[in-house]
Amino acid sequence: MKNVLGNSITVTLFGESHGAEIGAVIDGLAPGIEVDLDFMRKQLNLRKPHGKISTQRVETDEPHIVSGVFEGKTTGTPICILFENNNTKSKDYSKTKDLMRPGHADYTAIEKYHGFADYRGGGHFSGRITTPIVAVGAVLIDALKKKGIHIGTHIKQCGTIKDTPFTNYEEELAKVNDLIFPVLDEKAAEEIHAYMEAAANEGDSVGGILETVVTGIPAGVGEPWFDTMESMLAHGIFSVPAVKGIEFGKGFAFAEMKGSEANDPFEIEDGKVTTKTNNNGGINGGITNGMPILFNTVIKPTPSIYKAQETVNMDTKENVTFQIQGRHDPAIIHRARVVVDSITAIVISDMLALRYGTDWLR
Amino acid sequence: MKNVLGNSITVTLFGESHGAEIGAVIDGLAPGIEVDLDFMRKQLNLRKPHGKISTQRVETDEPHIVSGVFEGKTTGTPICILFENNNTKSKDYSKTKDLMRPGHADYTAIEKYHGFADYRGGGHFSGRITTPIVAVGAVLIDALKKKGIHIGTHIKQCGTIKDTPFTNYEEELAKVNDLIFPVLDEKAAEEIHAYMEAAANEGDSVGGILETVVTGIPAGVGEPWFDTMESMLAHGIFSVPAVKGIEFGKGFAFAEMKGSEANDPFEIEDGKVTTKTNNNGGINGGITNGMPILFNTVIKPTPSIYKAQETVNMDTKENVTFQIQGRHDPAIIHRARVVVDSITAIVISDMLALRYGTDWLR
Amino acid sequence: MKNVLGNSITVTLFGESHGAEIGAVIDGLAPGIEVDLDFMRKQLNLRKPHGKISTQRVETDEPHIVSGVFEGKTTGTPICILFENNNTKSKDYSKTKDLMRPGHADYTAIEKYHGFADYRGGGHFSGRITTPIVAVGAVLIDALKKKGIHIGTHIKQCGTIKDTPFTNYEEELAKVNDLIFPVLDEKAAEEIHAYMEAAANEGDSVGGILETVVTGIPAGVGEPWFDTMESMLAHGIFSVPAVKGIEFGKGFAFAEMKGSEANDPFEIEDGKVTTKTNNNGGINGGITNGMPILFNTVIKPTPSIYKAQETVNMDTKENVTFQIQGRHDPAIIHRARVVVDSITAIVISDMLALRYGTDWLR
Amino acid sequence: MKNVLGNSITVTLFGESHGAEIGAVIDGLAPGIEVDLDFMRKQLNLRKPHGKISTQRVETDEPHIVSGVFEGKTTGTPICILFENNNTKSKDYSKTKDLMRPGHADYTAIEKYHGFADYRGGGHFSGRITTPIVAVGAVLIDALKKKGIHIGTHIKQCGTIKDTPFTNYEEELAKVNDLIFPVLDEKAAEEIHAYMEAAANEGDSVGGILETVVTGIPAGVGEPWFDTMESMLAHGIFSVPAVKGIEFGKGFAFAEMKGSEANDPFEIEDGKVTTKTNNNGGINGGITNGMPILFNTVIKPTPSIYKAQETVNMDTKENVTFQIQGRHDPAIIHRARVVVDSITAIVISDMLALRYGTDWLR
Repeated sequence: MKNVLGNSITVTLFGESHGAEIGAVIDGLAPGIEVDLDFMRKQLNLRKPHGKISTQRVETDEPHIVSGVFEGKTTGTPICILFENNNTKSKDYSKTKDLMRPGHADYTAIEKYHGFADYRGGGHFSGRITTPIVAVGAVLIDALKKKGIHIGTHIKQCGTIKDTPFTNYEEELAKVNDLIFPVLDEKAAEEIHAYMEAAANEGDSVGGILETVVTGIPAGVGEPWFDTMESMLAHGIFSVPAVKGIEFGKGFAFAEMKGSEANDPFEIEDGKVTTKTNNNGGINGGITNGMPILFNTVIKPTPSIYKAQETVNMDTKENVTFQIQGRHDPAIIHRARVVVDSITAIVISDMLALRYGTDWLR
Repeated sequence: MKNVLGNSITVTLFGESHGAEIGAVIDGLAPGIEVDLDFMRKQLNLRKPHGKISTQRVETDEPHIVSGVFEGKTTGTPICILFENNNTKSKDYSKTKDLMRPGHADYTAIEKYHGFADYRGGGHFSGRITTPIVAVGAVLIDALKKKGIHIGTHIKQCGTIKDTPFTNYEEELAKVNDLIFPVLDEKAAEEIHAYMEAAANEGDSVGGILETVVTGIPAGVGEPWFDTMESMLAHGIFSVPAVKGIEFGKGFAFAEMKGSEANDPFEIEDGKVTTKTNNNGGINGGITNGMPILFNTVIKPTPSIYKAQETVNMDTKENVTFQIQGRHDPAIIHRARVVVDSITAIVISDMLALRYGTDWLR
Repeated sequence: MKNVLGNSITVTLFGESHGAEIGAVIDGLAPGIEVDLDFMRKQLNLRKPHGKISTQRVETDEPHIVSGVFEGKTTGTPICILFENNNTKSKDYSKTKDLMRPGHADYTAIEKYHGFADYRGGGHFSGRITTPIVAVGAVLIDALKKKGIHIGTHIKQCGTIKDTPFTNYEEELAKVNDLIFPVLDEKAAEEIHAYMEAAANEGDSVGGILETVVTGIPAGVGEPWFDTMESMLAHGIFSVPAVKGIEFGKGFAFAEMKGSEANDPFEIEDGKVTTKTNNNGGINGGITNGMPILFNTVIKPTPSIYKAQETVNMDTKENVTFQIQGRHDPAIIHRARVVVDSITAIVISDMLALRYGTDWLR
Repeated sequence: MKNVLGNSITVTLFGESHGAEIGAVIDGLAPGIEVDLDFMRKQLNLRKPHGKISTQRVETDEPHIVSGVFEGKTTGTPICILFENNNTKSKDYSKTKDLMRPGHADYTAIEKYHGFADYRGGGHFSGRITTPIVAVGAVLIDALKKKGIHIGTHIKQCGTIKDTPFTNYEEELAKVNDLIFPVLDEKAAEEIHAYMEAAANEGDSVGGILETVVTGIPAGVGEPWFDTMESMLAHGIFSVPAVKGIEFGKGFAFAEMKGSEANDPFEIEDGKVTTKTNNNGGINGGITNGMPILFNTVIKPTPSIYKAQETVNMDTKENVTFQIQGRHDPAIIHRARVVVDSITAIVISDMLALRYGTDWLR
């Protein structure tokens, strides 16, 4: 389905980094959901570049909702949210359009689109296109919250520096969702920030791992084949630029565990079933078990670096050495966090709507 | 879409561990593709339990193709492949049906299906249901091979024991695809086998990591949003029971890398563009770049163990200690290998058909 | 999606007229729905050929449910229903396989499947493939009935002979659903039957119009774009072989009406909104209004006739005159009726599940 | 999939009659297709109201393409086309929002959207929302033309007045596609226009039948189940407001025909297979046979009339008599013509892309 995510609730994404407008259409959303523009702006601000560790291209990111919202509430019909591109410096790109930036989608775009894609600023592949995803996510995160479902993400690791893992979800989610730089431990925050700045000063870039938790989701959501909860979340999350891996619960650490350590014992109290541990990250057999969903996402280092790189000139068909120009992010993991939260909200809302009907979210 | 995987080529899966028959319907496949039953049987044999490290339930696994194949070739209409369940011991399960096996889908099945699911042998959640996936995969793996696309998987790690990674793809894929126990290095094979046997003797189970490579796939396949090649493969792979993580290229190791290390420099020779390294696993911006696709899949330890476990009796609503009976696998990673290959073949065939048309595979 | 119908509840169809088995997989159905095999057999009997006005090929049509039903009830996992083909005379076809029967899909199958399709008895295009649709429909018709939703169809017109239209739905649906030959008026039934027999005696065939009514469907189901209730029903109904037109409410008669005649005035009584007339067939703006859904379907004359016909020999590439051999139906409209009811049940169940959730039907 | 039409090429529609902007996103379109804005404006003009037989609300209908087109050509990424709503008189509606207009979607919208939908001017149900469909259609009609596929529609019947049917397709399609009032015969054009004006003067409205032809489509496109060419076209066409029926080839006239009259004899000349007649409208077994596709669509009389009507006040829950205010069309069939052509182009392009790959249309 290409640029459409979801089945019952669908999000269609469009736009290019240096095009006139970018945006998204969200369809299938229940009517009567309040659209809190201040919360949307707050979420958009979490995605915005701040300070030296991000690109110097700053857009106002003011959302224009042109359909599907009436008197402050969703109508039940498709919501189109638009953003203007204003702060574009397209001249930066025309002279280097034939130079395939390593780690970027320049070359694959040429193979796929036969040279017709808008190459300026990464075009449709740009991280800029995640802006409407965050706007859509804001509506859903807010609506899910009212149903007792909370989503949050922090930087688990950047380089070799680690934040304290989520443990006290309720408190920590509330805290981290207000932080521009989503690190729980203050010392770790400083170290990660310094690590990013050092990379920026070297003209290099860094990657890292995000830890996401979803609390309050009911048991029984997901399918054994082929739309497991892991499948659906992974499908969405892997479309966030630079994501190269996802693991649920103990994830890759399961390789060294025994079944006797890995299994989560069930227990019942006052009729409510929970598990004593949550190694499986809230999902058994592809279906939620009522425990928090836990997953980690790895973000590769931003491919835009200011060092000499070897590549190919597609016009002259020659091997060349070149250096990227323009404005770029030495790190995007702190900004990607709210995109991961937003995709998570989209996937979960969609699966809840499929299970409980299109009116469920209101 | 629940039990349907794919868009242009679709696979619909049905059956329960102890039901009458299990099977799959594959639709959208080009006409005129040869169906090699001997190769299908060979692939099915790779999935079969062998020796002490697997369940003692052995089925003949003889595929019955009841539609869509005429005079040895695909007709272009849906192919239904059936397998009978013969070696079932359903009495093993009825007495323990109210005891939620930790790590299994018993509890989530009750939440989802309200107690109506067939609980015998894990029902629709059973690894047995991967049999038809392997049969479907055999048709596609064979057809892809004729188009120059090769798929193969080995055990990269089990416990702390590591196989040598894939390096010489052509030769190693040919070798590993003939091995019942898919480990390249003989010494590692022995150690992993011994590790599995030791766990079996303790009544415990083990997990591990599979490394998969796909060679020969053309550049330009996949979408930036939301159907990236990673999204589509992850969607399919996560529906294989016990999979809890997937990473492409360097995957989680990207967290500690710099952009200058992570980027794959492009080079051109005789008009052909390749990359010097393949850290990105053959995918940039969600689209294949013509290099081999590389990914790792983590399989959690089999949840069926013969040790005392704490859990809940859903009938009496009490906390209990119990021990699983029946026949189970202390390790499934070596059997899961061909399932991962099969899902990979399905996903890739589907994406190629979407890009190049429904006749492409013939 | 080819051989898959539906979104939340999906039906996958497979099989060829002279293949080993035909069948369907129904997925997404709520757990706990009773599967009444006697009702299924009764519905299958309505589709069976009876007497001189139908083909002499009679199959036992005994359904084999091999998955998804446990202890007489749906489990919530995919249900596979199989039928064996026994009474096949494949030799009839091999000698004429290069002769494109006019009105049939022989030629289009060659263009689509490049000559690899199973040509015997129409292969995958055969009306025989509607058998599993009727079996699936039986489960849904029964389940919908328990929710107060009733479906029924009669022959509205055959040649120029007309049955009395549905007027007293409750009583007439109950009556017509028990009739092998679904005509309300006894005299019309005799005349239509005689008209069919006369055509059979001449080696010719007839078409006709079916009138379908669905009562008890709640208001608010359907979408303005692009999944209107009309769109979804038409999508399904047009896949019934020989259907060439569908109209809702007054349908083509609207062409000569004025708005003042066409509009259905609303009225309210005891809080319940109805319309005084039902020219719009229960649908406004693509969405049900709570009134019965009414539609007519036209079935073209069976293309298999025993008269000399001109056509093309695809082997010799010559124009030829030939006469069809084998066993065929001079009329199928009376048998198509239960197929139309079954497709209607599938489409409506799917749309209700999308709106009210996957558990709604239980 | 609600407001998304298509599988390989998808169109997502959004907007309300009196909202800020309306638009569509078209995705999956091949790169390198020329976007001729003048042709788009010409097509949009065919949909615009002209003269006394249409609403007095006239919008500039200037398309704003904000993504997916670069240097005049499609990029291969989603194209978003926006239109501003300027000439809105929303006050007309607020006072009558509780009065359910007969034949309109007011009541069904309340049942579906629980009163949150934007009721002004019919909101998302308005014929105004077909504007972006026409813009999308213009791109596709133009691209199909370059592949030798031509689409055109005329008014076949309005009231009891009939236009001459299409006979000489090439010439007549060229002619009718330039006509604002799409009637081939001049005298019939005058009579139909007069009939519409007379209805307008009485405060009433009229319906009619459109005849559509598609030439140049290759044989072999479509599926036997469930995505027949008829199914796909009907699915799309029934989402055009006021459409209540569709028939292919002889359609409802098949009811009175015999097989010997209905079958289209095949003939071959210079290796090319055609049929002597085209009663089946270019489709056999759901698949194109290479002959022109022919279908008729019935449009009901516009429900907005200026006569006293009985209905319900949803606020007071009383039966009332009222008269519609505002600006409305006494006839829309002449304007609907280009919407039908556009939907046809979308459906056909999508099916061709599925069959021949996403690059086919360039």
